[in-house]
Amino acid sequence: MPSIEHIQYVKAPIEQVFAALTTQAGLAAVWTDNLSVTPEVGAINSFAFGSGKPDRMKVVELVPGRRQLWHCLDSDPEWIGTEISFDLEPRKGKVAVTLKQEKWRAVTEFYRFCNYNWGVFLLSLKGYCEDGKGIPYQDRKF
Amino acid sequence: MPSIEHIQYVKAPIEQVFAALTTQAGLAAVWTDNLSVTPEVGAINSFAFGSGKPDRMKVVELVPGRRQLWHCLDSDPEWIGTEISFDLEPRKGKVAVTLKQEKWRAVTEFYRFCNYNWGVFLLSLKGYCEDGKGIPYQDRKF
Repeated sequence: MPSIEHIQYVKAPIEQVFAALTTQAGLAAVWTDNLSVTPEVGAINSFAFGSGKPDRMKVVELVPGRRQLWHCLDSDPEWIGTEISFDLEPRKGKVAVTLKQEKWRAVTEFYRFCNYNWGVFLLSLKGYCEDGKGIPYQDRKF
Repeated sequence: MPSIEHIQYVKAPIEQVFAALTTQAGLAAVWTDNLSVTPEVGAINSFAFGSGKPDRMKVVELVPGRRQLWHCLDSDPEWIGTEISFDLEPRKGKVAVTLKQEKWRAVTEFYRFCNYNWGVFLLSLKGYCEDGKGIPYQDRKF
């Protein structure tokens, strides 16, 4: 099955990068400020973009400073059932962040647009962790 | 073989987007200001990033306002032999830009980092075409 796979290197303490990816405040700055997040295994986080129904992501794994895995319960039909993982690893004074969205059924136009947007997500993560300023959905141009 | 595939929507005339992707001035603003580009089939364009040997891309197809295809002759070993295409299509007052880098041999850490960077490339393209300001290599944080 097709997957989306990125890596980005962030110059910040690993705990800070992990918090940016797992907490309400972090994901508000990095992804969308219309969200409800609980950093606990089994929690169902929700993220809204524009006027559509919120995406709902179940937290399946959460290993502090190491890994987070979400299972997508609700979103665009192409996203439902996909798994989104964030793996962190110290690397030469930075944190290597590997982001994957796996179990796509096909490489479609929406896959390509999401692939682009995950790149912007990681740029936003880097900006937020290194300079205090992310690029959440509300600040992006489409 | 693995490929990298993105799409981005740019609100600008299609001729302007095509010029940004095919000319010396456009690619200097979008990708790297250390380059040599001739927009002709058969030309070998070169792009330098930092102090490394320049990448060399042979222009294999060039259809004004529609498509450009490069064959990578020289770069990181993982890039050599890959094909990079840019397809443009009018879409609801914007230009849909599909970018593909095909014929990767494997999904590696470098593939993941290039996937991220092609996302930033398209963000740069959008900024340059819509607001006159790209994010070339020299302005990016790594």
